[in-house]
Amino acid sequence: MNASVTLLILDLVGVYFFAVSGSLLAARQRFDLVGSLLLASVTGLGGGVVRDLVLNAGPPVAFSQPLYLAPPVLAVVTVYFISASVQRFNRLLVAFDAAGLALFCVSGTLLALAAHAHPVAAALLGVTTAVGGGILRDVIANLTPALFDQREFYAIPAFIGATLTAIAASLGVLHPLTTVPIIVFVFGLRVAGRRLRWGIPLASRSVVE
Amino acid sequence: MNASVTLLILDLVGVYFFAVSGSLLAARQRFDLVGSLLLASVTGLGGGVVRDLVLNAGPPVAFSQPLYLAPPVLAVVTVYFISASVQRFNRLLVAFDAAGLALFCVSGTLLALAAHAHPVAAALLGVTTAVGGGILRDVIANLTPALFDQREFYAIPAFIGATLTAIAASLGVLHPLTTVPIIVFVFGLRVAGRRLRWGIPLASRSVVE
Amino acid sequence: MNASVTLLILDLVGVYFFAVSGSLLAARQRFDLVGSLLLASVTGLGGGVVRDLVLNAGPPVAFSQPLYLAPPVLAVVTVYFISASVQRFNRLLVAFDAAGLALFCVSGTLLALAAHAHPVAAALLGVTTAVGGGILRDVIANLTPALFDQREFYAIPAFIGATLTAIAASLGVLHPLTTVPIIVFVFGLRVAGRRLRWGIPLASRSVVE
Repeated sequence: MNASVTLLILDLVGVYFFAVSGSLLAARQRFDLVGSLLLASVTGLGGGVVRDLVLNAGPPVAFSQPLYLAPPVLAVVTVYFISASVQRFNRLLVAFDAAGLALFCVSGTLLALAAHAHPVAAALLGVTTAVGGGILRDVIANLTPALFDQREFYAIPAFIGATLTAIAASLGVLHPLTTVPIIVFVFGLRVAGRRLRWGIPLASRSVVE
Repeated sequence: MNASVTLLILDLVGVYFFAVSGSLLAARQRFDLVGSLLLASVTGLGGGVVRDLVLNAGPPVAFSQPLYLAPPVLAVVTVYFISASVQRFNRLLVAFDAAGLALFCVSGTLLALAAHAHPVAAALLGVTTAVGGGILRDVIANLTPALFDQREFYAIPAFIGATLTAIAASLGVLHPLTTVPIIVFVFGLRVAGRRLRWGIPLASRSVVE
Repeated sequence: MNASVTLLILDLVGVYFFAVSGSLLAARQRFDLVGSLLLASVTGLGGGVVRDLVLNAGPPVAFSQPLYLAPPVLAVVTVYFISASVQRFNRLLVAFDAAGLALFCVSGTLLALAAHAHPVAAALLGVTTAVGGGILRDVIANLTPALFDQREFYAIPAFIGATLTAIAASLGVLHPLTTVPIIVFVFGLRVAGRRLRWGIPLASRSVVE
C-alpha cells in the first residue's frame, strides 16, 4: 500500500470520526436527520475545506472527490441507531472528537506538505484542519466552541501532533508506521487532559470583579 | 436573450430575495441601517462567495462585478419602508428566504457547471450556495440556523432543485424555460413543508432523558 | 523606507491591535491562554485571510509569512499581564478594536490594490479586512458582533477610510504620510461616534409590537 493511499485512508477515517461527533451533537440538540447530515458534513469536511482553500491548489477535495461524501452519510446512519442518554452522548462526542483531532492533525499536516507548503505553514494548516471542523460545528449549533472550554485540553494536543508530524516528515523518517504513535499520543493527551482536568492558566493573570 | 444573461438575472434576483431576508432579520432584531446592509450583503452574497472560492476560478463575482452590490442596497431600502409586526416580519422572512433558496439552488448549480465542475460537485455547490447565505445570516445574528429547526423543511428542497438542475443540464434539456418549473417546485416544497409541518425523523432514534 | 515595507508594518501593527482585542475578550470571558491565542489569531488574521482568499493571489500571508504569527503571540503576552476590572477590559477592547479597524481599512485596501484589484473591489476588501476579524471574534465567542450593536459606530468609519484610501491611491497622492491622517480620522470617528452616541436609523421605520 503506497503512501498516498495510506494518507487518503487516514484522512477519510478522520472525516468519519469528526462527522460522528457532528451527528452526535445534532442528536443531543434534537435536530432532525437533515440537520444531522449537514452538521456531520460541516464538522467532517469543514476543516479540510479551509485547509484546501488556503493551500490554493485546486478545488477542495471535499468537493472534487465524491468519496469524501461517504463518511458523513455513514456517520448519520451510525448515530441514528445509537440510543443513549444525553450524558452518554456527551462522552461519545468527546471520544469521537478526540479521534478526529488526532487523525486530522497528522493527515492535515501531511496533505499540506504534499501540496508543497513550508513545514511551519504545514503544521499550522494541520492544526487548522484539526480544530476547524469542531469550531464550525459548535458555532453553527450556537455553542461556545469546546476549544474555549477550560475543562477541555484541546488545541495543545493538536499542536503537538502537527509539529511532530512536520518534524518527522522533514527528517524523512515518516512512513505509515511512524504516524501511528503520533495519533495514539494525541488522542491519549486529549482524553487524559480532560479526565485529569489539566489546567492551563487563564488569559489574564487577574480579573478584578 | 442568451443563456448567460438569463443566468446572471436569475442569480441577481436570488441575491435580492436573500438580501431582503437578511434585512428583515436585522429589522426584527432592531439592528440599525448599517447592520441591515451588512446582514443583507452577507446573506445575499455569502453563499456565492463560498461557491466561487471552492470553484477557484478567479475572485468571487460579489467582489469582481459591482452589479452584485445593487440588490443588497435595494433590499435595505425595501425593508426600511416596511412597517409591520414582529410576527409578520417572520412570515415575510420565510417567503423571501424560500424564494432565494429556490433561485440559488438553480443558479448556483448552473454557475458551477459553467466553471466546468463535475455534475455531482455542481449540485453540491448549488446546495452550498442556497443554504450558505442563510446559515451565515443566522450564525452572525447569533441564532441557531433555520436549517436545524425541525419546523422548517429547508435543505431537502434545495437538494432536489440542485439535483434536478444538474440532471437537466447533463441531459442537455436545460434552457431558461426549464428552470422555471424547478424554481417554482422548490419554492412550493419549502413553503408547503413548513405549512403542513412535514416531519423528518430525528438524528437519533431515541434520546433517553 | 520603501512603500511595501511601510505597508507591511502598518498591516502587522493592525494585526497586533486586533489580536489584543481578541485576547482581551478571551480574558473577559475567562478563557485560558490557549483560547486567548486562538481568539487573538482569528481576530488579528481572520479578516486578512478572507481578503487573500478573495484576491486569489496565492496562499494568505498569515500562512505564508511566519512574521504574521508574532503579533498574536505578543498580544497574548500583553493581555496576560493586564490586571483590570471587567468594565476596564471593555474600554480597552473598544480602543484596540478601533485602532485595528483604522489600520486595516487602509492596509487592506492598499494590499488589494497591490494585488491589482479594481479600486471599488479594493475598497470593499479593505472594509472586509477591517470588519471581518471582529465579526469572527464575536461569532466564535458566541456574542452578537459589535457591528450590530446600535451603541457602536463601527462600519461607517471603516467604509470612509477604505474609500478615502482607494481615492487617494487612484489619484496617485498616496504615500506613507497621506495614510496617517486617514488612520487618525477613522480611529477618531469610531471613538467619537461611540462616546457621543451617534445614532443611525433602525433597519425598519417601524416595528409594531
